[in-house]
Amino acid sequence: MKISIIGVGLIGGSMALKLREKNIASFIYGIDNNKQHIDEALDLKIIDAEANLQQGVKDSDLIILAIPVDAARKLLPNVLDLVSDQQTVMDAGSTKAGIVGAVKNHPKRSRFVAFHPMWGTENNGPKSAIAESFSGKAGVICNKEESAEDALNIVEGIVNALEMHTIYMNAEDHDIHTAYISHISHITSYALANTVLEKEREEETIFQLASSGFSSTVRLAKSHPEMWVPIFKQNKENVLDVLNEHITQLRKFKSALEKENYEYLEELITNANRIRGILR
Amino acid sequence: MKISIIGVGLIGGSMALKLREKNIASFIYGIDNNKQHIDEALDLKIIDAEANLQQGVKDSDLIILAIPVDAARKLLPNVLDLVSDQQTVMDAGSTKAGIVGAVKNHPKRSRFVAFHPMWGTENNGPKSAIAESFSGKAGVICNKEESAEDALNIVEGIVNALEMHTIYMNAEDHDIHTAYISHISHITSYALANTVLEKEREEETIFQLASSGFSSTVRLAKSHPEMWVPIFKQNKENVLDVLNEHITQLRKFKSALEKENYEYLEELITNANRIRGILR
Repeated sequence: MKISIIGVGLIGGSMALKLREKNIASFIYGIDNNKQHIDEALDLKIIDAEANLQQGVKDSDLIILAIPVDAARKLLPNVLDLVSDQQTVMDAGSTKAGIVGAVKNHPKRSRFVAFHPMWGTENNGPKSAIAESFSGKAGVICNKEESAEDALNIVEGIVNALEMHTIYMNAEDHDIHTAYISHISHITSYALANTVLEKEREEETIFQLASSGFSSTVRLAKSHPEMWVPIFKQNKENVLDVLNEHITQLRKFKSALEKENYEYLEELITNANRIRGILR
Repeated sequence: MKISIIGVGLIGGSMALKLREKNIASFIYGIDNNKQHIDEALDLKIIDAEANLQQGVKDSDLIILAIPVDAARKLLPNVLDLVSDQQTVMDAGSTKAGIVGAVKNHPKRSRFVAFHPMWGTENNGPKSAIAESFSGKAGVICNKEESAEDALNIVEGIVNALEMHTIYMNAEDHDIHTAYISHISHITSYALANTVLEKEREEETIFQLASSGFSSTVRLAKSHPEMWVPIFKQNKENVLDVLNEHITQLRKFKSALEKENYEYLEELITNANRIRGILR
């Protein structure tokens, strides 16, 4: 099948690599305002040709939007304006209520399947793309009843080819769950980086002493604002809700330490250890 | 050389494996109140024999304390009471001011070298021990001027054998830096786990959706309270200082979101991205 990838970055690039490897994609157009990303994607054989939006969409069986969630929300109606009932459109964004809401009454709504692969790294651009990225991770399809059956089948085939396990969810639930499981982790990590950068003026010492524990908690703080500001913006209410709870939880540690209540501190830690039973 | 390891857990066990591999250790005694750890360490050939404190210390060239920091602080004076001027004692604890203070006026103080390997995982027990754990990480030696030259040389040899790069620091500075770079990461991770466990009642959903990002920020929350309560207790003032700053930083994200000030949010994230230049 012919595929257009709008946004040949980390996610779009990784999908392209895998779909080509699996012989799902016979030809891949890259559509991107970032000329450097297009050149890199051509060099790395992630895409076969550059296209503008009109050309690429017209000549593709499947169009994948893999751009920041605000841009995707804005662009999707224009893409749907261009497609026929034989074409399918999917996205890959980390928030779903916004984009689903933006096309709710679009005459071509049923050609769109809302998708979110639960994978990402702190890196960006086609050079960071990895074919095996998605294997074994969750691929969430939202509001499937709003998509045409044939479009849904095509996207389910794509999720299978990416070797993900498919989870169905409505967009509102998705946004609540990802606030807990993904978005708050990023805020924590950004705030931790800012804490250390604020308090630890000796950068050389950070570099020398940084343990694997610190590196893993602060890894996500390398993630770019172009992707994450729009996610926080679109999922504001849920993120604020979880962030307030997180600050409350941190205050419990603060209070246990201030009051030298080490039994309570142990209780807090023992409770946190329960995550061991849930995440291997 | 004959070595006694007091506490044959993750750290003690990993040191034993590496020192045997490097032919530094000719015979290793294991000293541990936890009978199961002793049995596992014997099975895994981490130690050659079990010993009680008196026996083991008397018959060893080097004694390594690898027990929680409160226990180490309490036990070290007793160990020093038993050693001659031909023997060396080192620890491996994550806080240093307390233990160094506890033996400041001990007549055998110079036989002790205060050490902290900047490595650990969320696992514990000899089964989790890995010989290559320490390679490439920082090994911090504190207050070296309070140790005898020959004792210091022996410990420097051990740090080399572990393939760590040696950093010298005074104990107070060490405790400040580790509050930033290690201890706060653990509190953040514990609090994040508690946030998710509190708010996300559907454990199955956590399990299904958990992305690699979430797993890496929450990994340290699996760390055991037996080890971490004593660390927070001994480093209370520094940890509170950094924790207060961390809460302040999180409140900035909260405020940016509440006020929908996305320029400020972008600024906060861009600042956090600076960690990229410091940690690869």
